[in-house]
Amino acid sequence: MALAAAAGPEDDIRQKLKASEAAWNRGDLAAFASDYEDAPTTTFMGKELTRGDNAAILARYQRGYPTPEARGVLTYSEIEVRPLGADYALALGRFALKRTEAGGGDASGRFTLVWRRTAKGWKIIHDHSS
Amino acid sequence: MALAAAAGPEDDIRQKLKASEAAWNRGDLAAFASDYEDAPTTTFMGKELTRGDNAAILARYQRGYPTPEARGVLTYSEIEVRPLGADYALALGRFALKRTEAGGGDASGRFTLVWRRTAKGWKIIHDHSS
Repeated sequence: MALAAAAGPEDDIRQKLKASEAAWNRGDLAAFASDYEDAPTTTFMGKELTRGDNAAILARYQRGYPTPEARGVLTYSEIEVRPLGADYALALGRFALKRTEAGGGDASGRFTLVWRRTAKGWKIIHDHSS
Repeated sequence: MALAAAAGPEDDIRQKLKASEAAWNRGDLAAFASDYEDAPTTTFMGKELTRGDNAAILARYQRGYPTPEARGVLTYSEIEVRPLGADYALALGRFALKRTEAGGGDASGRFTLVWRRTAKGWKIIHDHSS
């Protein structure tokens, strides 16, 4: 436990982002949503500020991305991870969604993720994507 | 010192945001820029990711907002502050820039700020505004 707690967040979080990309691309939105802290205080900032636990997050993604065409192929790039003390971390990066015209067309942007080290591993407590 | 370290960041950061709004509105961009950590690692995420110390930040604001009309009147709202351990904090909120048509017209959006407790007080180490 002491060893695990001493390890920096970078490798863990990069692995989680890789797994999250793969989960999205196989249509497993439940796995994708499970990277967020399962708490009503979890926040998402886009045009609006929304909050929600894993069930709420999952429902939102299922509504927004109901088909393989709408989900397209997700790629993250330019990822940077910075520890914020022992139990929090900041991750920055770009996302790109490759989609057909029917699926909504290509989309891309940048994200800021704030992570917290929880009993269940690193979880996202705040997501600003634009 | 022990007492100061035990105090939560919320009041400090709310006061800093209030002072930053006032600095902008009197055209004191140097005071506005001084809320950011004066380090090349300080990051700004918008359409692009940029980095810079206070001089770089100030130069960018001076280029982008050279006149009182371009600066307009800045108001923050819906501010939330959450501690991230003892030495970091997250602040979320909205910004609105009231401007004449000649100044560029009204603008508004949302921000995520990550703050670090430094020897010079709480400083912004990452800003995502969209």
